[in-house]
Amino acid sequence: LRVGYPEVIFTEGKDIEHLKHILLDMIKREITAIATRMSKDTYEKIKHISDKMIYNELARILVINPKENEKVGKVAVVTGGTADIPVAEEAAVTLETFGNNVVRVYDVGVAGIHRLFLNLDKIKNANCIVAVAGMEGALPSVIAGLVDVPVIAVPTSIGYGANFKGLSALLTMLNSCAAGISVVNIDNGFGAGYIASLINKGFSGNGVIK
Amino acid sequence: LRVGYPEVIFTEGKDIEHLKHILLDMIKREITAIATRMSKDTYEKIKHISDKMIYNELARILVINPKENEKVGKVAVVTGGTADIPVAEEAAVTLETFGNNVVRVYDVGVAGIHRLFLNLDKIKNANCIVAVAGMEGALPSVIAGLVDVPVIAVPTSIGYGANFKGLSALLTMLNSCAAGISVVNIDNGFGAGYIASLINKGFSGNGVIK
Amino acid sequence: LRVGYPEVIFTEGKDIEHLKHILLDMIKREITAIATRMSKDTYEKIKHISDKMIYNELARILVINPKENEKVGKVAVVTGGTADIPVAEEAAVTLETFGNNVVRVYDVGVAGIHRLFLNLDKIKNANCIVAVAGMEGALPSVIAGLVDVPVIAVPTSIGYGANFKGLSALLTMLNSCAAGISVVNIDNGFGAGYIASLINKGFSGNGVIK
Amino acid sequence: LRVGYPEVIFTEGKDIEHLKHILLDMIKREITAIATRMSKDTYEKIKHISDKMIYNELARILVINPKENEKVGKVAVVTGGTADIPVAEEAAVTLETFGNNVVRVYDVGVAGIHRLFLNLDKIKNANCIVAVAGMEGALPSVIAGLVDVPVIAVPTSIGYGANFKGLSALLTMLNSCAAGISVVNIDNGFGAGYIASLINKGFSGNGVIK
Amino acid sequence: LRVGYPEVIFTEGKDIEHLKHILLDMIKREITAIATRMSKDTYEKIKHISDKMIYNELARILVINPKENEKVGKVAVVTGGTADIPVAEEAAVTLETFGNNVVRVYDVGVAGIHRLFLNLDKIKNANCIVAVAGMEGALPSVIAGLVDVPVIAVPTSIGYGANFKGLSALLTMLNSCAAGISVVNIDNGFGAGYIASLINKGFSGNGVIK
Amino acid sequence: LRVGYPEVIFTEGKDIEHLKHILLDMIKREITAIATRMSKDTYEKIKHISDKMIYNELARILVINPKENEKVGKVAVVTGGTADIPVAEEAAVTLETFGNNVVRVYDVGVAGIHRLFLNLDKIKNANCIVAVAGMEGALPSVIAGLVDVPVIAVPTSIGYGANFKGLSALLTMLNSCAAGISVVNIDNGFGAGYIASLINKGFSGNGVIK
Amino acid sequence: LRVGYPEVIFTEGKDIEHLKHILLDMIKREITAIATRMSKDTYEKIKHISDKMIYNELARILVINPKENEKVGKVAVVTGGTADIPVAEEAAVTLETFGNNVVRVYDVGVAGIHRLFLNLDKIKNANCIVAVAGMEGALPSVIAGLVDVPVIAVPTSIGYGANFKGLSALLTMLNSCAAGISVVNIDNGFGAGYIASLINKGFSGNGVIK
Amino acid sequence: LRVGYPEVIFTEGKDIEHLKHILLDMIKREITAIATRMSKDTYEKIKHISDKMIYNELARILVINPKENEKVGKVAVVTGGTADIPVAEEAAVTLETFGNNVVRVYDVGVAGIHRLFLNLDKIKNANCIVAVAGMEGALPSVIAGLVDVPVIAVPTSIGYGANFKGLSALLTMLNSCAAGISVVNIDNGFGAGYIASLINKGFSGNGVIK
Ligand SMILES: Nc1ncnc2c1ncn2[C@@H]1O[C@H](COP(=O)(O)O)[C@@H](O)[C@H]1O
Ligand SMILES: Nc1ncnc2c1ncn2[C@@H]1O[C@H](COP(=O)(O)O)[C@@H](O)[C@H]1O
Ligand SMILES: Nc1ncnc2c1ncn2[C@@H]1O[C@H](COP(=O)(O)O)[C@@H](O)[C@H]1O
Ligand SMILES: Nc1ncnc2c1ncn2[C@@H]1O[C@H](COP(=O)(O)O)[C@@H](O)[C@H]1O
Ligand SMILES: [Mg+2]
Ligand SMILES: [Mg+2]
Ligand SMILES: [Mg+2]
Ligand SMILES: [Mg+2]
Ligand SMILES: [Mg+2]
Ligand SMILES: [Mg+2]
Ligand SMILES: [Mg+2]
Ligand SMILES: [Mg+2]
Repeated sequence: LRVGYPEVIFTEGKDIEHLKHILLDMIKREITAIATRMSKDTYEKIKHISDKMIYNELARILVINPKENEKVGKVAVVTGGTADIPVAEEAAVTLETFGNNVVRVYDVGVAGIHRLFLNLDKIKNANCIVAVAGMEGALPSVIAGLVDVPVIAVPTSIGYGANFKGLSALLTMLNSCAAGISVVNIDNGFGAGYIASLINKGFSGNGVIK
Repeated sequence: LRVGYPEVIFTEGKDIEHLKHILLDMIKREITAIATRMSKDTYEKIKHISDKMIYNELARILVINPKENEKVGKVAVVTGGTADIPVAEEAAVTLETFGNNVVRVYDVGVAGIHRLFLNLDKIKNANCIVAVAGMEGALPSVIAGLVDVPVIAVPTSIGYGANFKGLSALLTMLNSCAAGISVVNIDNGFGAGYIASLINKGFSGNGVIK
Repeated sequence: LRVGYPEVIFTEGKDIEHLKHILLDMIKREITAIATRMSKDTYEKIKHISDKMIYNELARILVINPKENEKVGKVAVVTGGTADIPVAEEAAVTLETFGNNVVRVYDVGVAGIHRLFLNLDKIKNANCIVAVAGMEGALPSVIAGLVDVPVIAVPTSIGYGANFKGLSALLTMLNSCAAGISVVNIDNGFGAGYIASLINKGFSGNGVIK
Repeated sequence: LRVGYPEVIFTEGKDIEHLKHILLDMIKREITAIATRMSKDTYEKIKHISDKMIYNELARILVINPKENEKVGKVAVVTGGTADIPVAEEAAVTLETFGNNVVRVYDVGVAGIHRLFLNLDKIKNANCIVAVAGMEGALPSVIAGLVDVPVIAVPTSIGYGANFKGLSALLTMLNSCAAGISVVNIDNGFGAGYIASLINKGFSGNGVIK
Repeated sequence: LRVGYPEVIFTEGKDIEHLKHILLDMIKREITAIATRMSKDTYEKIKHISDKMIYNELARILVINPKENEKVGKVAVVTGGTADIPVAEEAAVTLETFGNNVVRVYDVGVAGIHRLFLNLDKIKNANCIVAVAGMEGALPSVIAGLVDVPVIAVPTSIGYGANFKGLSALLTMLNSCAAGISVVNIDNGFGAGYIASLINKGFSGNGVIK
Repeated sequence: LRVGYPEVIFTEGKDIEHLKHILLDMIKREITAIATRMSKDTYEKIKHISDKMIYNELARILVINPKENEKVGKVAVVTGGTADIPVAEEAAVTLETFGNNVVRVYDVGVAGIHRLFLNLDKIKNANCIVAVAGMEGALPSVIAGLVDVPVIAVPTSIGYGANFKGLSALLTMLNSCAAGISVVNIDNGFGAGYIASLINKGFSGNGVIK
Repeated sequence: LRVGYPEVIFTEGKDIEHLKHILLDMIKREITAIATRMSKDTYEKIKHISDKMIYNELARILVINPKENEKVGKVAVVTGGTADIPVAEEAAVTLETFGNNVVRVYDVGVAGIHRLFLNLDKIKNANCIVAVAGMEGALPSVIAGLVDVPVIAVPTSIGYGANFKGLSALLTMLNSCAAGISVVNIDNGFGAGYIASLINKGFSGNGVIK
Repeated sequence: LRVGYPEVIFTEGKDIEHLKHILLDMIKREITAIATRMSKDTYEKIKHISDKMIYNELARILVINPKENEKVGKVAVVTGGTADIPVAEEAAVTLETFGNNVVRVYDVGVAGIHRLFLNLDKIKNANCIVAVAGMEGALPSVIAGLVDVPVIAVPTSIGYGANFKGLSALLTMLNSCAAGISVVNIDNGFGAGYIASLINKGFSGNGVIK
């Protein structure tokens, strides 16, 4: 149905044998696909089945039948802290696999806001921004007040106590008083990368085929 | 700072005299602006101050210094039920005031999914979809599974009991297993319209000025 | 008191010695019973006590004194994803042990709704449907909008972040805008199978003895 | 699509003019329908449009084009307290309009459990039981332990403090340790009546047309 | 300050060396005391320090300087299921150490209420009842409707899904529509035993010294 | 069944005609009863039906067929603030109607703890203490650390913001680190009075008849 | 006990006659005091009792026996939006009545962060900052990252939907990743002003008397 | 930007190699810094890199380039129980490293309030109090009612059941009816120490440099 987009597999909770079966089937059918949320551990158990797979440990993503692709447009992926980087990489690798240029701007959270300002130029001329933050999650609000492109906010589960596993950052982002923000699930780097790709490709005149 | 976008005023909780003051100032400075969440009641109290204002009761929006604008691209605004329409209209009127073509597809929720299928063509060739739903809020998931453009999901507070004033629909949308969805606050039609406008204008080659 | 129904034991949290004692007692008294939520691990520790027990690992169910039974009517057990299958199997094995025909229709969730439509005929001529789904949990709503038999909805704890261990799917199902749905506890495949059996046997003219 | 079932309108939040329009359309097309959650107030405003409507104040239900129907089978509608009666009546009137015999057993909650036992015979020979309770919501569990037919549990918002508008009763019912219970939304008498009708008609050999 | 009552130590989270220090100090000063929430594991690590200690594994209680005491009055400790027994034993052993007669009535929950009725006489002539239940937690309500003595309700964390670690049972008990119930924290068998002892000794004319 | 205790009616949510009917029936049958949560407004509407009723506005309690009774023992009813007094009076009037001596000690909350110490003697020689507090709800903990009689804690809904309508005080009381406390529902003065009466009468050798 | 500080009365929920009594007593005893949360309505009902009272409508504060006082040090009171001003004024008037210099910096929230930077000098040379914000509540984090004085954060209940009456802003503030912040209850301007006064007076060498 | 304050590293969740890199960089640049939330385990893995680091196991803090510093003023760190001590030590060691005198007063919770009174003098003449408590969290309220200096309240996650990992203590502290309290996140000893240092240094005439 959907044309021009890689297939996506959510690895978590899948049985190893079932997983191998799915992967081999895609390799045989020469389909480009990504498997998200794949732990190093799981990768070690499946890596022998084919050499047509590239694994990114930080992003926990496996690309099946990776293809050279020309990258278009630009998406900025921004984080508040260093602990948010794995989620940001899930977004960034998703974006790159889907054919988007990505600029990474990490660790520029509101507690040291001068670092954000030093990097503002890199952020501002993107077509779309993925803003990833844990704890209080204020980064997307500050960014959306400074730019005029869509901001996809990703709350992370980084924090403790009254953070309630990302609930605090999620609520912050939903209640943003800056316009131009929408939000995906806690730790959902893939989901943010996917919608940012749809947006950037539109901006870039390489829209999806309907 | 932001160029080419109308100013926005959030009416709720503002004192009538304070509101008149803000509106008159904008009228004098010939700024096009919209005021959201304006009740009929409030409008009756301020309407005498100028004839350069148009009020939309269903959307609860007042446009100040309305300008003829050429509409570009296309955004589909879709609702699950008829009770979701006021929130959808807040999005639609925001979109139109910001210069976007809008197609409305109302009352096509999952309980009678054939109505959605009958209207799929209208939805599919939009650049962006605003999907508004209350109660269980399943509509955006179903739509995102059928199209390849960004879906901005708006949970509404329509429902009762374990709906918890829109929390149920909000969680449904955040947990969507379809890719390509991001979510705004409960009942935030304006926020959805604003980001959809940013997206549609990018698609249409009429991007914001950076 | 209850006639014609197997006894049920909830295994989780029971001490191994206590469990062996209960099982042996039932075997001696020649009572047909099922033990739910039995891990492979626990089974390995008790399997030597008798050969009058059959273990189903996926469903985590042990049948004690299994009896040939004639199956009546038909119940469809449907899942949104593959991760929901263990809960669905708990329902399906419960149903079969209690003497009901079961048709399994797995991985037909709303993100790829065409798969549901391809399987609609199998679902539609059942007397009762058990619809199992995690993440956003929209499947039972869509099904109930298409059929005219009772739908027993089972939320699963599959998901992450704002899923809150199944709360999201549970609320979705309770707030369904389609009529004909009722809901059991998160991951309660047994409970769904039990009530579906009561319903199917009524439809089939093989009602319980009162 | 659905055959043999009256249409259903959810009145709450509908505009009076919109409502009149829907009702007149149904009257003209001679469709039997029910409108739920209609306040006395709303009824007073619409009652003049036709004489083909019967209003039940306690159940807050309006029947449009009421038809003589032969009632089949039997459903028991049971409440814990007297404050639960309006929700129970919503279920009971829904059942009767859909052609089911109903037996009402009210105010037999667990605080005075002897009253339940005095009425057990009436309950036991029904094909399905709708058990309505607020506050701690324990009634469906006790009933399901005593009977062998499906119990549809309806939590009500009756209570105060840590009741949290019905949440307490809802959780009680979902966590029932008796088998044979499934649950609908807080105060959703209509939903309970609808699924109980599907079940009773199956039992009675008058199943829905598929 | 408090006279005639054993000292109490909450073991969980205490460092082994710190714990030994406290215990030895009490043994030296010949004070009778109990340590609650002591795991088997912890006991193994401290048991060598003295022979003036008795450990109860099921109740996870260590009695220091145990004293022969004459037991007065009677308290019934009742559970809904067998999984609730460790919490009940915490209450029962607390009661016995403090000098109260205890009658245990286990596994008489509402899903099989006839077992409660068979045991009602044992319960009824106690001065106070400790009622322990997990899952839906309905037992204390049913008991309080049948007796005229104070019922101390103890919710347990037994259950899964929408049980939310005992929250469901806690809310049920707080919202009981039977009078004569008060509630302690989830799994707090000790707290229930302590207050039941204060109550029973008052009834028995062996009140605390003020 | 229960002997020697007045009947109790929960007024809230009952229809005026239904209420009159219940009251007249009790008056005719010469039963002593209390109706709780009766607003001034409701009382004005029913007061003409008989002169055998006494209304207490602050406690919102109506006593039907009031009887001279000899009061026994002593219960202290204590509040943290003045806003907690209506709930405390509900407890106190319940206690007096049921034949208990009551001593009131109001507005002695922990923010000004010296006032509690000035009144400690009055509290200490009661058989049971009802401790009523809103906002942070710390009062029962402090009291239970100072006395050796049962403390029945009543959280009130007094407060704002993160108080969440009494949830804060409720959790405080359930988590008390002092032993000898049990808790009733938010604002449930009647429930506290009822169980305190059962306890005090036991202490006083005037136990309930079993 | 506490020396040099005005007495404080919380008006909400107090009976008018009771309130007059307290106020007259303070006037007679020539005590300087403030009454917080006094509505215009309540003020109209009590204002005739004395002319030794000054009412501030926006802050909802009544000062009794107002005294000329020399103001010391400096506290900045800052808000995110204009809707937060009443809570900010409660803090500011409390501070002034207690003898502190106050600088007000309103409507400088993170959606338009340049306004904050324009005002940074005024904020930076205060001894303590009271930062008031609703919706996402990110302001205190941003400020605390820029200054080196204590920041007292006040969440307000301004917002809608997933704001949950201030919960969102409260969690944001508790989870701040900037150091130097502590938080008071939602809408508790008085509490923030009180502790800021204690801090500023310490800084100013006018500490409280111990 | 910030002058005179040690840098701070949050250890949890950081990769060992990344951590070593940060630490070595600081050691080379001769910056005094602290790393919080460092487990014994992590310390063992990094301790070989330099001898310019001091580790405090109880407080889980590593000081890098520790400097002799003159301590000023006085801050009291107080706990309710012994299980709260690690969080209190995190505050105390933070305070000492930042150059503040600290007095520790541990295990003086409200269940045995006489211990608090015995230690009141030590507490009263501090410039600021850090009050750490779990379970019901009532200690800060009681202290703030007795002293006239700022109280920084730290809820801990000590407790079980309805404690909900510190939520109970957090709510208690936010709802305190004593004035002069503000609150940090659950278990955030570092955050409390940091703001207490800012306050104490102001009191001591050694304010931060602006
Ligand atoms: N309906 C709405 N929902 C959420 N935010 C809004 C809405 N309308 C306006 N806003 C935002 O609120 C701000 C204006 O608030 P104010 O200055 O108080 O009028 C702008 O930043 C808008 O983006
Ligand atoms: N998987 C399950 N989920 C919920 N309830 C169950 C399950 N399996 C058994 N039960 C119920 O648990 C009770 C048996 O518990 P027990 O006596 O502890 O073995 C029976 O009443 C069953 O109806
Ligand atoms: N009381 C009720 N509670 C929940 N759902 C209802 C209720 N009454 C009607 N419905 C459902 O609401 C839908 C009708 O909504 P509407 O089209 O807005 O009138 C139908 O699908 C009904 O199944
Ligand atoms: N606006 C307010 N918010 C929170 N607490 C307050 C407020 N105003 C006064 N208080 C506190 O409430 C108490 C006075 O309560 P009351 O004796 O009922 O007037 C004092 O301890 C004050 O510190
Ligand atoms: Mg923007
Ligand atoms: Mg899609
Ligand atoms: Mg259907
Ligand atoms: Mg049953
Ligand atoms: Mg009773
Ligand atoms: Mg005590
Ligand atoms: Mg700072
Ligand atoms: Mg104080």
